[in-house]
Amino acid sequence: MISENVKIFSGSSNPQLAAKICGELGRPLGRVKLSRFKSGEHYCLYEETIRNCDVFLVQTFSRPINEHFVELLVMMDAAKRASARTINLVIPYYGYSRQERKAAPREPISAKMVADVLTTAGADRVITIDLHAPAIQGFFNIPVDHLTALDLISDYIRKKNIVNPIVVSPDAGRATTAENLANILNAPFAIMIKKRPEHNQSVITHVIGEVEGHTPIIIEDLIDTGTTIVNVVESLKERGANDVLICATHPVFSPPALERLDHPNIMEVVITDSIAIPEEHSSRFHVLSVAGLLSNAIRINTSGGSISSLFKYGGV
Amino acid sequence: MISENVKIFSGSSNPQLAAKICGELGRPLGRVKLSRFKSGEHYCLYEETIRNCDVFLVQTFSRPINEHFVELLVMMDAAKRASARTINLVIPYYGYSRQERKAAPREPISAKMVADVLTTAGADRVITIDLHAPAIQGFFNIPVDHLTALDLISDYIRKKNIVNPIVVSPDAGRATTAENLANILNAPFAIMIKKRPEHNQSVITHVIGEVEGHTPIIIEDLIDTGTTIVNVVESLKERGANDVLICATHPVFSPPALERLDHPNIMEVVITDSIAIPEEHSSRFHVLSVAGLLSNAIRINTSGGSISSLFKYGGV
Amino acid sequence: MISENVKIFSGSSNPQLAAKICGELGRPLGRVKLSRFKSGEHYCLYEETIRNCDVFLVQTFSRPINEHFVELLVMMDAAKRASARTINLVIPYYGYSRQERKAAPREPISAKMVADVLTTAGADRVITIDLHAPAIQGFFNIPVDHLTALDLISDYIRKKNIVNPIVVSPDAGRATTAENLANILNAPFAIMIKKRPEHNQSVITHVIGEVEGHTPIIIEDLIDTGTTIVNVVESLKERGANDVLICATHPVFSPPALERLDHPNIMEVVITDSIAIPEEHSSRFHVLSVAGLLSNAIRINTSGGSISSLFKYGGV
Amino acid sequence: MISENVKIFSGSSNPQLAAKICGELGRPLGRVKLSRFKSGEHYCLYEETIRNCDVFLVQTFSRPINEHFVELLVMMDAAKRASARTINLVIPYYGYSRQERKAAPREPISAKMVADVLTTAGADRVITIDLHAPAIQGFFNIPVDHLTALDLISDYIRKKNIVNPIVVSPDAGRATTAENLANILNAPFAIMIKKRPEHNQSVITHVIGEVEGHTPIIIEDLIDTGTTIVNVVESLKERGANDVLICATHPVFSPPALERLDHPNIMEVVITDSIAIPEEHSSRFHVLSVAGLLSNAIRINTSGGSISSLFKYGGV
Amino acid sequence: MISENVKIFSGSSNPQLAAKICGELGRPLGRVKLSRFKSGEHYCLYEETIRNCDVFLVQTFSRPINEHFVELLVMMDAAKRASARTINLVIPYYGYSRQERKAAPREPISAKMVADVLTTAGADRVITIDLHAPAIQGFFNIPVDHLTALDLISDYIRKKNIVNPIVVSPDAGRATTAENLANILNAPFAIMIKKRPEHNQSVITHVIGEVEGHTPIIIEDLIDTGTTIVNVVESLKERGANDVLICATHPVFSPPALERLDHPNIMEVVITDSIAIPEEHSSRFHVLSVAGLLSNAIRINTSGGSISSLFKYGGV
Amino acid sequence: MISENVKIFSGSSNPQLAAKICGELGRPLGRVKLSRFKSGEHYCLYEETIRNCDVFLVQTFSRPINEHFVELLVMMDAAKRASARTINLVIPYYGYSRQERKAAPREPISAKMVADVLTTAGADRVITIDLHAPAIQGFFNIPVDHLTALDLISDYIRKKNIVNPIVVSPDAGRATTAENLANILNAPFAIMIKKRPEHNQSVITHVIGEVEGHTPIIIEDLIDTGTTIVNVVESLKERGANDVLICATHPVFSPPALERLDHPNIMEVVITDSIAIPEEHSSRFHVLSVAGLLSNAIRINTSGGSISSLFKYGGV
Repeated sequence: MISENVKIFSGSSNPQLAAKICGELGRPLGRVKLSRFKSGEHYCLYEETIRNCDVFLVQTFSRPINEHFVELLVMMDAAKRASARTINLVIPYYGYSRQERKAAPREPISAKMVADVLTTAGADRVITIDLHAPAIQGFFNIPVDHLTALDLISDYIRKKNIVNPIVVSPDAGRATTAENLANILNAPFAIMIKKRPEHNQSVITHVIGEVEGHTPIIIEDLIDTGTTIVNVVESLKERGANDVLICATHPVFSPPALERLDHPNIMEVVITDSIAIPEEHSSRFHVLSVAGLLSNAIRINTSGGSISSLFKYGGV
Repeated sequence: MISENVKIFSGSSNPQLAAKICGELGRPLGRVKLSRFKSGEHYCLYEETIRNCDVFLVQTFSRPINEHFVELLVMMDAAKRASARTINLVIPYYGYSRQERKAAPREPISAKMVADVLTTAGADRVITIDLHAPAIQGFFNIPVDHLTALDLISDYIRKKNIVNPIVVSPDAGRATTAENLANILNAPFAIMIKKRPEHNQSVITHVIGEVEGHTPIIIEDLIDTGTTIVNVVESLKERGANDVLICATHPVFSPPALERLDHPNIMEVVITDSIAIPEEHSSRFHVLSVAGLLSNAIRINTSGGSISSLFKYGGV
Repeated sequence: MISENVKIFSGSSNPQLAAKICGELGRPLGRVKLSRFKSGEHYCLYEETIRNCDVFLVQTFSRPINEHFVELLVMMDAAKRASARTINLVIPYYGYSRQERKAAPREPISAKMVADVLTTAGADRVITIDLHAPAIQGFFNIPVDHLTALDLISDYIRKKNIVNPIVVSPDAGRATTAENLANILNAPFAIMIKKRPEHNQSVITHVIGEVEGHTPIIIEDLIDTGTTIVNVVESLKERGANDVLICATHPVFSPPALERLDHPNIMEVVITDSIAIPEEHSSRFHVLSVAGLLSNAIRINTSGGSISSLFKYGGV
Repeated sequence: MISENVKIFSGSSNPQLAAKICGELGRPLGRVKLSRFKSGEHYCLYEETIRNCDVFLVQTFSRPINEHFVELLVMMDAAKRASARTINLVIPYYGYSRQERKAAPREPISAKMVADVLTTAGADRVITIDLHAPAIQGFFNIPVDHLTALDLISDYIRKKNIVNPIVVSPDAGRATTAENLANILNAPFAIMIKKRPEHNQSVITHVIGEVEGHTPIIIEDLIDTGTTIVNVVESLKERGANDVLICATHPVFSPPALERLDHPNIMEVVITDSIAIPEEHSSRFHVLSVAGLLSNAIRINTSGGSISSLFKYGGV
Repeated sequence: MISENVKIFSGSSNPQLAAKICGELGRPLGRVKLSRFKSGEHYCLYEETIRNCDVFLVQTFSRPINEHFVELLVMMDAAKRASARTINLVIPYYGYSRQERKAAPREPISAKMVADVLTTAGADRVITIDLHAPAIQGFFNIPVDHLTALDLISDYIRKKNIVNPIVVSPDAGRATTAENLANILNAPFAIMIKKRPEHNQSVITHVIGEVEGHTPIIIEDLIDTGTTIVNVVESLKERGANDVLICATHPVFSPPALERLDHPNIMEVVITDSIAIPEEHSSRFHVLSVAGLLSNAIRINTSGGSISSLFKYGGV
Repeated sequence: MISENVKIFSGSSNPQLAAKICGELGRPLGRVKLSRFKSGEHYCLYEETIRNCDVFLVQTFSRPINEHFVELLVMMDAAKRASARTINLVIPYYGYSRQERKAAPREPISAKMVADVLTTAGADRVITIDLHAPAIQGFFNIPVDHLTALDLISDYIRKKNIVNPIVVSPDAGRATTAENLANILNAPFAIMIKKRPEHNQSVITHVIGEVEGHTPIIIEDLIDTGTTIVNVVESLKERGANDVLICATHPVFSPPALERLDHPNIMEVVITDSIAIPEEHSSRFHVLSVAGLLSNAIRINTSGGSISSLFKYGGV
C-alpha cells in the first residue's frame, strides 16, 4: 500500500488520466484550486496540507502547451513553499522535445530550457513516456523515469495477427524505433527517404525496402499535424502496399490532424491517453491507457521495486 | 553613440514600442524570426550574428501573458547558445507581480518563480517600470533597473492645472504611491478603505479624507479589469467629488476593462505604452510613451552614465 | 510526541525564549558551546550528536544584530558538517527587513543578502514572525513559515474592552496591517501622513480620519527607536485623541526607545518576547509570548499538521 | 588580427593539431608545463601570464581518454585560479559521447557527466566537431560551437569522381548523416539492419536498398575498433558491391582497428586529424586536417563573425 | 542492524577492502558490472535496484589514479539517475591531496577541483582517512567524515615496547602529526630540516633534536616513491640512530617504492590496507586494516551514533 | 595608467590603508556613505556611479570583526545591484582563518563559511596577504591573489645585520614559514614544542634546536593576544637566548596584546599596516606598509602583468 504521505494532484491538461492513475493506486485525487486571473496569470492553491508529503503533479504538455507549462511551474512553486518533501512531475508527453538540438545556428534547444526551468522551479523527479529523443534524459540532473508504451502497442498489434506485415520508418531519423518494433514482431523493415525543406514540411523522395503487397505498420512517438503520416501512407499505397496501421504514443493532433487522419488508406490509428483527445473523436481511435504504467511507476518510487520490471522488451 | 555590438530584438508582445526605442537610439531593430508550430511550441531564429554582442530583448508581459513569457524564454535560450555576451531583458510591464507574497497558505509566490526562471534561462539584467511591489527587485540576484513613469505622469497632470485636486489612493496597500504624487503636486490626499473577499473582487466600505468638491486624481501602477477603478469612481461621486482623472502606468486592460472605463464620471484615463492597446481604442486614452525612458536606460547601460539621472522626483 | 531526532539549540540572542519553546515541546534544550575568541571570532561546538537529526536553531536578530547573525552562520556551518539531516532556523525577528527594496539608487537590498547568505550557509527552512514586508518570503527559495502575532495581540486588545477605539496607521506604507486589525476589532481607521526626509527621521503633516475623542490603537510590526511612535502619539493628542495603546510584535527598542516610550500619553505598550528586553524594564510592558506559536510550528513541521491551523484571522 | 590576449595551450593528446591551429592563426603556442607525478597525478603550470586572457585549451579525448580528461580538468583549474578571463575548450573529439542516453536501467549518461564536470571545472565555451549525438549540445548551458567535417569529406569525395556510388548507413541509428551525404553527392542510399546483442558487438541481418554493382561510401562520425566497419564491408561484398570507401571524422582506432582496417575490400579510409594517429600508420589513411576549421572558429569567437560561415552544406 | 536500504558497492581499486567492510557489517557486497570499452571509456551497470537506497561506493585513489577517479564519477552518475536516495563515497585514500594549495603562481589546486567534481557528479557525503591536509575537509560543502588510523598505528607501536624511542618528523610541514604521536607515546621528538628544490625531490640539511642512540619512529600520512623516507633513514643512521620504524596510513608506493623500502636500516614498515598492495609483497609489511574503522563509520551514518566514538586520542 | 572604470572604496576597518593605496595608484578614493542604524544594521550608498566599473572594496577583518564582515556584505550587495562589472575584495587580513579545519567533531570550518558567503554576496576576486593556512585559497572558486609580506619583512631584518641570529618557530604547525625565513636569511632554525590544552591557551614543553647565545627571530602570520609570543620569549630567555625580534604580518592585537608586548625581552616588534593600530601605540612598533603590494596587485589586475612579479623569494 502507498503511504498517506504520497499525494497526487492534477493540472488542467489531462484530469481524466490523473483520475485513472489515482484509481489504480486506490487513492483520492488531491484537492487543488487552479484558476486564471482575467489577465491570464495562473493561480494555484492546495486545499489540503502537503507538508512533508511526496507530491506527484500530473501534467501533460498538450495544447495550449505554454499554458500547461506555466501552470505546472506555478503549481511547483506553491508546493515547494508549502513544504512538500519531494515534488515529482508526471509528464506523460514531454513537449518541446523536437527542439532537442540545434539544427541551424542561433536556434534554441528549447527541450533543455524546459528541463532547466522545471528543475529551477523545484522538480525532484520526472516520470515520462517515449521521449522524442532519449538524450533528453541527459538534459536533467534529477532522476528521470523514462517509460515506454512500446510494450502496450506491440502486444496490441500482435493480437491483431496481421498478415504479411512490414514495419516502416517514416524517416531516417526515426529508424531505430521501427527497427526495434520489427525485431519484436519478427517482421521486415523499410524506411522512407524524405527531405524536410522547412519546419512542419516534408517531401518523400523514395522508399528503401520492399513494401508491395505488405501491410505497413508505422510507429511514431507522436503524431502532430498528421502531414507526415498521410504523405507516408499515400507514398506506400503508390508503391503497392496495403492499408496502413498507424501507431503513436502521443496524439498531439494539432489541426488539421483530426481531418487528415480520416483517410481511406489508414486501417486504424492506435494511440495512448498520454494526451486527452476530444471525446467526440475518441471512438475513431484505438486508445491504450498509460495509467497502469504511470501508477506502477509512482508505486515503485514510493514503495520500492524496480522500474525495469515495467519493461517487457527492454527500455530505460 | 551606441556600439554596434548592442543589438535590440523584439518579442511579439509590443513591437511598436521596440521600434520606438530603436528609433530613439538611432539603431535598426534586430532581425529575428519568431514563429509557433501548430502544436503551440515557440520557435526563434536570430537572423544576424549576435556573438559577443550585448543583446536587449524587449518583451512586455501583456496578454496572452504565458505565451509572451515562454517566447521570451525561448529567445533567451537561443541567444545564450549563440554566444551573446550579455542578455538584457527590457520588460516594461512585469507580469505576475501581484503574486509577490503568500496571502494564504499553500499559495505560490509566482513573481519569484518568474524571476528565478528568467535568471535560469540566461538573463544578465532586467530593465522594468513601476513594479507592483518594489521588493520584487530583491527577487533577483542580477541587477534590476527599476524605472518609473511617475515623472511623465506628474508632468502631464501639472500641465492640466486642475482646480482643487485631491490624490486618492484606491486602497490602503497602495497608499505610498498616492502619498508621493500628492507631495509632488502639493495636493491633499485621501484613501479608500475596502475589503477584498476574493481574488479580483473588492468592496469599498468608506473613505478617509475629505473629497467633496475636489477633483480626484487616482494613481495606480496598473489597471486590470477596471472593476476597482469604477467602484472607486462611483464611490467618490457618491461622496460629492467631481469627475475623476485616472492615471496608471500599465494598461493591462483585461476584459471588460475597455467597456468599464467608458464611464461618464471618468474625466480622462492617462496610461503609457508599456503595453500596447488596440489601435481602435487608443484615441480614448491619453498615452504617454516610455520609449524615451527605456532607450535612455539602454544607452546608460552600454555607454555609461547613471540611471539616477532618469528620475526627477526620486526613484530607484 | 516529537521524535528524538528533533533537536533544538539556542544562539545567544534569546535563550529565555528557546527554553520556553523547549518547555512547550517537553524536550530538553540541546547542548551547544558558544564562545567568542578574543579577536571577536565566533566559535561553536555541539556537545551532543546531531547526525541525521532535524536541527532547529533559535536565534533572533536583536542587538548586537551582526554578532547574532554571524553566530548563527557559524552554528549552521558546524551543524551542516556534523551531518544534521535538516537545518531549520527559528528567527522570531528577522532583522535587516526594512532594507527590502531600493529606495535610492546604489543602495543594497540587505534583506535579500541576508536571505541568500542564510541559504548558502545551509538553511533548509525558516520560521519567522511578522516580517516587516511579506515579500521577503519570496527572497527565499526554501520554505518560509511566516507566522503572525496578530491573533495574540487582537485577542488581548479585545479583552480590554476599549471604549471608542480607533485603529491608527502611523504611515501610509503600513496601512494594510492597521486595516486588518480594524476589521478584526470592528473599529474605525485613520492614517497619519508624514514625510521621511532621511533615514530614521519622520515628520507628520496631517491625519486622515477622525480621531478626536477616540482611543487610538497603533499597531506596528516593530518599534525601533520609538521616535515615530512618540511623534504619532503627540500628534494624536494635539488632535484631541485619548491616551494611546501601542502594539508591536518586535520590541527592537534601539536607544533611546526605553526613555521615549515612558511617555504620559501612552496608555500601555504591548509587545511579544520575540526579542528579549532587559528584565528591569519588562514590568513596564505587557509581554505576550510567541513560544506557543513557535513550538506549534516546530511540532507541525516534524510531526504533521498544517501551519494554517495556527491562524485565527488568516495569515500565511 | 587576433588580440594578444588570446592564448592557445595544448594538452598532451594532440600537440600536432594545436601547433597547426596556432600556425593558421599566426600565433605562438602558449607555454605550459604538463607533468605527472609518479603517483599518476597530473600537474600543470602556465609558464606565461594568462591574467585577463581568453584562454583556448586544445585537448582531444583520445586514448588514454581518462588521462586526457583529467589533465584537462587540472589545466582548467589552474587557468581559473590564474585569472583567465574566459576558458574555452577546443575538444575536436568529444569522448564518452556514445553514452548519451540510458539504453538500460541503472546505466550512467556519461556524456552528461563529462559536460557537467567540464562546466564545474571552469569552462566558458566548448568548440567541438561532429558529436556522436547532436543532443549533447543540450547537455551544456555554456555555448557549444558544433562544427562538422562533412564539408571537408564531401569535397574530397566529389573530387574522386566515383562511378556508381551509393551511400550506405551502417545502422539505422546513423541513417540521418548518411542521408545528408547522399543528398550532397546526389547519390542513392542504403541502410544496414543489424542487431547489437551486447556492447561493442553487432550482427548485420540484412540490407535495405540495392547495392549490387555500386561503390559503397560509408560515413561515420567515428571508427572505434573497426569491427562494425569490417562487418559492413564484408556484408556489402557478399551482396555484390564494389570495394568500399570509408569516411569518418574521428579515428578513435581502438585495438585492433589498425589491423582490421587493413582489409582487401576497403578502397580507402578517409579520416581527419581530430585524433592523432601513430606516424608509422598515417600513410595508410587519407587524413584531412580540421586545423583550418578550428582556427576559424577561434578567430570568429575572438574577432567577430559568424560560425555559420564555416558551413557549406548547413550545420550548426 | 543496518537497514536493507543501505547498499555497498566497490569500484575496481580495492575490492578486498570493500569485501572486508561488508563482512564487518554482515551485508553482501552490492552487484555492479564495471567495464571499460576498448576506447578506454568506463561503463557501469548496477545489477540490483538502488532506488531510494543509501548507496556507499568504496573507491580508493590508488594507481592508476585517474582511471579510478573517472570510474567513480561514472558510478555516481549511474547511481544518481537510478534514484539512489543518497550517494556516499568511501574514499580511504583521497588522492591529489598534495595539491591542496598554490605553491607557485598559475598552478592548480587540484584537491579542490576533485572535491568540486565529486560534488557535481552527485556525492552527498565523503568518508575518508588521514587527509594529507586537514583543510581539504573545507573544500567540500557536503559532510566529510575524516577518520584517522593514528589509533590503530599507535596501539600497534605501543605493543612493541620499543626501547628509547624518538618520534621524527621527516620535514617541518609534517611536524604536527609527529608531535601528536610523540605525545601519545610519551616519547621525545625530532625534526628533519630539508629543502625541496623541485617536485618529488628533497635534500635533508640537518636535524633538530637529539637522535643518537634512539630508535626513530617516523609517521607519515602516505609513502609515495619512498625517496624521502630513505633519505631520512640514512640521515638518521649517519647521526647515530638505530634502525628505523616507518609508519604510514596510505601505501601509495609509486615505483620504485617497493625496491627502496627494502633497506637494511628499516626495521619495519607499518601501513594500512587503505590501498591494496600486490599480494607477493604484502608479507614484507605489517598491514593494519581500516575495514573496522570504515564499517563503523557506515554503521553510524545509517543507524545512529557519533563518529567521535571512533577516536581514542582525539580526531575529527 | 589605470582606467577610470576602476574605482576603489573603503569600508570602515582601515581607511588609512585604503587612502594610501589610492595614493600609490594616483586615484581618488571612491565616495560611499556608510552608516549604521540605531538598531545596528549597516547601510551603504555609493555616491558616484559604479555601473560597468571594476570595483575594489578594501576591508580588513580587524575588530569588531563581525561588524566589518557584515558591512562588507552590504557593500557588495549594493555594488552588485548598482551594476558593477566586477567586485574585487581587497582583504589584507582574512579573519576566521584559524578555523580552517575541524579540530574536534561538530566544529565549524568558519573560514570556508566566510569564503562561501563572500562569493554568494557577489565577490569576483579576492586579494589578500599571508593567509593563516594557504589551503584557504582552495576554499574559493573565484581567483585569489595571495600576496605575502615576507619580502618586506626579510628585507627589513637583513638591513638590521643581527649578530648570531636564529629563526624560531613558535610551534610545530608553523614550522614551514620559519624554515623559509631561515633559508632566506641563511640562519639556523629552532622549534618550540608545546601543548594546546584549550583554545587560546598553550604550554611550551621544550625547544628543539640550540638557541643559547643567539638572537631569536620569531615570524608569525599574526599576533593575537600575544600570549603565545610572550611565552616563547620567556622560554627562550630561560634557555639563554638574547632579546627577541618579533615579526608578524597581521597585528590582530586582541586585548591584552598591547600590554603583553611591552616586555623587557622583546627587542622590537615588526608588523604591517594590514590592520590599523591605535595611533598612540604606533610608535612602539615598526610598521611596514602593504599599500605598495596591494596597489600593485590592483594595477596588475586591471592593466596587465603578472602577480608573480610581486614575489622576490617565491610565493603564490
